[in-house]
Amino acid sequence: MKKTDYFAIDFVDGQLEFLDQTKLPLAEEYCKTDNYEIIAQAIEVLKLRGAPQIGVASAYALALSIKNSALEDIDSTFNTAYNRLASTRPTAVNLFFALNRIKNVYKENSFRNDVYSLLIEEAKKIHSEDIEKCKAIGKNGLRIFKKKANILTHCNTGKLATSGDGTAFNIIKTAFEEGLVNHVYADETRPLLQGSRLTAFELEKCNIPFSIQTDSMAAVLMKEGKVDLVITGADRIALNGDSANKIGTYALAVLCNFHNIPFYIAAPTTTFDKNILTGAEIEIEFRNKKEVIEINNTEVTKNSYDVYSPAFDVTPSFLITGIITENDFYTFPYNFLYD
Amino acid sequence: MKKTDYFAIDFVDGQLEFLDQTKLPLAEEYCKTDNYEIIAQAIEVLKLRGAPQIGVASAYALALSIKNSALEDIDSTFNTAYNRLASTRPTAVNLFFALNRIKNVYKENSFRNDVYSLLIEEAKKIHSEDIEKCKAIGKNGLRIFKKKANILTHCNTGKLATSGDGTAFNIIKTAFEEGLVNHVYADETRPLLQGSRLTAFELEKCNIPFSIQTDSMAAVLMKEGKVDLVITGADRIALNGDSANKIGTYALAVLCNFHNIPFYIAAPTTTFDKNILTGAEIEIEFRNKKEVIEINNTEVTKNSYDVYSPAFDVTPSFLITGIITENDFYTFPYNFLYD
Repeated sequence: MKKTDYFAIDFVDGQLEFLDQTKLPLAEEYCKTDNYEIIAQAIEVLKLRGAPQIGVASAYALALSIKNSALEDIDSTFNTAYNRLASTRPTAVNLFFALNRIKNVYKENSFRNDVYSLLIEEAKKIHSEDIEKCKAIGKNGLRIFKKKANILTHCNTGKLATSGDGTAFNIIKTAFEEGLVNHVYADETRPLLQGSRLTAFELEKCNIPFSIQTDSMAAVLMKEGKVDLVITGADRIALNGDSANKIGTYALAVLCNFHNIPFYIAAPTTTFDKNILTGAEIEIEFRNKKEVIEINNTEVTKNSYDVYSPAFDVTPSFLITGIITENDFYTFPYNFLYD
Repeated sequence: MKKTDYFAIDFVDGQLEFLDQTKLPLAEEYCKTDNYEIIAQAIEVLKLRGAPQIGVASAYALALSIKNSALEDIDSTFNTAYNRLASTRPTAVNLFFALNRIKNVYKENSFRNDVYSLLIEEAKKIHSEDIEKCKAIGKNGLRIFKKKANILTHCNTGKLATSGDGTAFNIIKTAFEEGLVNHVYADETRPLLQGSRLTAFELEKCNIPFSIQTDSMAAVLMKEGKVDLVITGADRIALNGDSANKIGTYALAVLCNFHNIPFYIAAPTTTFDKNILTGAEIEIEFRNKKEVIEINNTEVTKNSYDVYSPAFDVTPSFLITGIITENDFYTFPYNFLYD
């Protein structure tokens, strides 16, 4: 691996290897494990993160859960691991999509001696499909560029959020390689700073000109005409196009509406939740208040204070100019029943 | 002083005593000095802060500058101190208002033996006028409450931002004492967290029910119907009502517009800049990028990254439902030429 290269997730010699994203960009440290509980904890504390990546990581984790399981324990081991992994992050639908694919293979083959290999094979398939989807999203997104653009983005949607080259970030990267990107403004994305830590790290690795700003500064950039378009990822998309994404996304969509700036979402179709008609049905994860009160494990204010800390918000579809998937480019009004 | 009491600024025994606001709420430490350079530095690093308080502190500082000055040096000492203090924070107009009042007294009395006492007297007058203005603002603001309300505020506008009981915060406090406040949502106010540190500290001291949230979460609170009104302070107001305030205020005003929530500004008339017609003429201070890259003197991301970091933004007057001063309550369209 070249010094400027990095990867977020890989499956090597029967173990999941992943970059500890909580330490970026100040340290690049990789972890290696075949223990699903360690992977579940890594997802909970956001060492592993990003809706598509959570899907791939949890698929490997669920497969790994039965690696050394005795035949008489295999069912209960598998079910315990399934429930444990399903409990890690409730909002990202890709998690359940991936876990259920592994579960389906397990159900049909649990009696076979090679069931572990079959599950790993399925996890690898989910992984390689994600890589292909990222590529297709990157290409499909090019059509939103009418000229060389200044882009604002929120949270992180690159290699570090997927198992491929990213969703919204890969559109930016692909457009940059085509000479269509002038500058990227990355929201720091409080509370966990995925923008100023992770997106900045990826922009630097890709040599894309960028700067970071606090989330509250995005409105001023828009007012000053410095932003041509905004693009983010999504964690769950309802059939009508209402989209859950990192807290702060909804505010950006409203600000785009006011400033007449197009607002796009990019996500693989695994992000669609066919069971829900609108965003009102999306369960929003609330995070520990320590994420607001502490920064780098140091209190910045009193931990006795009450904190309102949703991890995600839901942007109503009428505020979304377009949604880009690996298959197509969609505009309002959305109906994803047949996609 | 009772344990639950606190003050931000006081003039005692020929010295300025002030609470070091950079350490709040985790430590309550007071500083005491008669050295204007120490006061200038305290303003720069935000130990002393808030537009009205900067005015009062700089008035005392300018008076103190000639305390021990020999007659032959007094003019140059005074002018050096004036320029030094004027350079600390370019956006807050109250600073220049206060410095110029001291300068006028100095000009007419520099030949007198008791010029130092006269300057201190004028600084005390500015101080006591600020206290009275805060009281009047608190009362004038009561009319914005049609019922018991949930309020969202940004940055800090209480005792810690003035030399009295505050501007926007004093309206909240006065309304709370009248039974008109249900809950206060305090934006943390990145980068320097004046909301989660200072406003939270003051809300706690006043026993007002509150919670804190990252700036990006305000939009969701509005969407969920949890916010009845938003009120903030201001650092400079143009004749047409365009108002500069802490970065993030403009975004809130746009979000209020979208959600049909009234957005108010409270400030003493010393915040009006009669020399400028619109907000386009307001000079915006840009702060050191370390304030975004470091938190509690620890890097959270790489200090090599470019940062866009305006300290303030300008909210156009058409987004401001009302402006409350010590004199009156104003609504759009504004014309402050004769106030």
